[in-house]
Amino acid sequence: MPTTVSAYMATAADRPLEPATIERRDLGPHDVLIDIAYAGICHSDIHTVRNEWGRTNFPVVPGHEIAGTVSAVGEQVTRYEVGDRVGVGCFVDSCRECEYCLAGEEQYCVQGNTGTYNSVGRDGKPTHGGYSTAIVVDENYVCRIPEGLPLDVAAPLLCAGITLYSPLRNWNAGPGKKVAIIGLGGLGHVGVKIAHALGAEVTVLSQSLKKMEDGLRLGADHYYATSDPQTFRDLREHFDLILNTVSANLDMGKYLNLLKVDGTLVELGLPEHPIEVPGGPLVFKRRSFAGSLIGGIRQTQEMLDFCAEHGIGAEIEVISADQINEAYERVVASDVRYRFVIDTSTL
Amino acid sequence: MPTTVSAYMATAADRPLEPATIERRDLGPHDVLIDIAYAGICHSDIHTVRNEWGRTNFPVVPGHEIAGTVSAVGEQVTRYEVGDRVGVGCFVDSCRECEYCLAGEEQYCVQGNTGTYNSVGRDGKPTHGGYSTAIVVDENYVCRIPEGLPLDVAAPLLCAGITLYSPLRNWNAGPGKKVAIIGLGGLGHVGVKIAHALGAEVTVLSQSLKKMEDGLRLGADHYYATSDPQTFRDLREHFDLILNTVSANLDMGKYLNLLKVDGTLVELGLPEHPIEVPGGPLVFKRRSFAGSLIGGIRQTQEMLDFCAEHGIGAEIEVISADQINEAYERVVASDVRYRFVIDTSTL
Repeated sequence: MPTTVSAYMATAADRPLEPATIERRDLGPHDVLIDIAYAGICHSDIHTVRNEWGRTNFPVVPGHEIAGTVSAVGEQVTRYEVGDRVGVGCFVDSCRECEYCLAGEEQYCVQGNTGTYNSVGRDGKPTHGGYSTAIVVDENYVCRIPEGLPLDVAAPLLCAGITLYSPLRNWNAGPGKKVAIIGLGGLGHVGVKIAHALGAEVTVLSQSLKKMEDGLRLGADHYYATSDPQTFRDLREHFDLILNTVSANLDMGKYLNLLKVDGTLVELGLPEHPIEVPGGPLVFKRRSFAGSLIGGIRQTQEMLDFCAEHGIGAEIEVISADQINEAYERVVASDVRYRFVIDTSTL
Repeated sequence: MPTTVSAYMATAADRPLEPATIERRDLGPHDVLIDIAYAGICHSDIHTVRNEWGRTNFPVVPGHEIAGTVSAVGEQVTRYEVGDRVGVGCFVDSCRECEYCLAGEEQYCVQGNTGTYNSVGRDGKPTHGGYSTAIVVDENYVCRIPEGLPLDVAAPLLCAGITLYSPLRNWNAGPGKKVAIIGLGGLGHVGVKIAHALGAEVTVLSQSLKKMEDGLRLGADHYYATSDPQTFRDLREHFDLILNTVSANLDMGKYLNLLKVDGTLVELGLPEHPIEVPGGPLVFKRRSFAGSLIGGIRQTQEMLDFCAEHGIGAEIEVISADQINEAYERVVASDVRYRFVIDTSTL
């Protein structure tokens, strides 16, 4: 029997989110029912709710940073038991057959994976996300949240955490490597913590020095203001890896020149317009300009285990459901340190 | 005593090159005197002569694809003897102390290396290139041309060859890898030969099918016209590596979409304007957009040895000195298959 659950829903791009009830599907043999405790607010939620990517099918319940507890399991579930602490990230299914799914990199599924919300499941019904009290997910798309990692600070790791962890691992951030993170926001602050824990020398490149004290406390070794032209002289050819968490279009040539030979600048956000990349900084120092998208289930689990081991959680502000719309305004104004997390018991 | 040699020289951006004599420096203890037999015409020569990069110090003798024979050696020269067949590429000196020089990647020298022409040597005098009958070069910046590799077809390898070989090696082109080369010109045609010899599956992406027969003969497995929109549908997510030898600004998003997950598109030329790179194709498939610049002396030697072993030389049209100006017009019009080489005995 489908389960009726409380949720917060967007019905149109120009309307605030509002309380609603939605149905979750019957528990299939491989499904787990998760009582959601917390759901992070990701900027993607806002882009979707406001239809800024032009791909939103209303109504939609956002939320792909989900932490909770298993409350029921399907007949053939082997990986989880009732009571297990678990998380769900940006997708809840994929083709399971393509080379990327088989390699555990479902985020690059050739068919396109099934988004946690604003997508269509195998049952032909729209998927709805974490701004709700419960969700049904195939056990293969669920991660375990280790003991010692509180559910509220774990929730944002399911998107923000893996978005930073995956490129840090892919481009070998670690001891002896100089890593810069552009932007100290929801993504960037987790990146600082993880890069520091991986042993890299971490520099924050932020518009101003306003959050410098925070940045250093979170694990950054250095903190520079990008509004100061001297920054770009001092740090010329300095970094092995730069992760860009800022979606606004930057003067990319300036940032590429901060990379050593063979260095890579990785885009993690999606700027609205194409990025103007001068050829010289790439050719003359064999630099790369790359992109990266979240991570697969296997690596997301690895990231959660790593974060638990190193005591890493997101810095959060817990809100109740009736503060969601206000929180959206504050995220857009960069007025949050550093992630809003909805206490779903208030739904 | 300095040696006076015949040369072809540019005296101003708006004038044709003309015959001249220049002096080569006294042979230092580590120098070799090279009787030049052939000098390739690289598009960079034309950019320099026409001051299209705004950095030309006239008068200038171009030429950085040099093949010849050692005719004298300095007292302390150990690597070469009179009679040795040798080549000189794009640079004739570097700082020798920075991490890149020490790693044998002098092309990325922190101080900037000394160009074979339009640069200034340690003696404070302008360097002049290969459109001349002889040149004096420190033995550490000279490569050996193996027996069996004729000097005329070897000359273009010193720039065009290494420009393609280096990224093919750096990004691991070889068996099982699908490599595309954009443009079948002076650079591209050597790239096809080398990539094929490395064992990769090679595709040429050319504006039209005009040179298709040549491309397949040179070693390409496939040949597609980029003027045909179907090409971009057929080859979507197909390649591990794409090397772009075309300097004109391309619609880069279309080409990036031809890469698999983790694929890299490498710029080898220098487009006049910044390149517009859409973020989506990078982020959604973890692709990279990179650059690469020639190669170090060690790798240039490796490339020459590889080419000799695989019977690879450039496809050339040998010209006499009085045809240089006409040849420039034909290079600009892409009317050469595939590299002009000056017979310097005609100087």
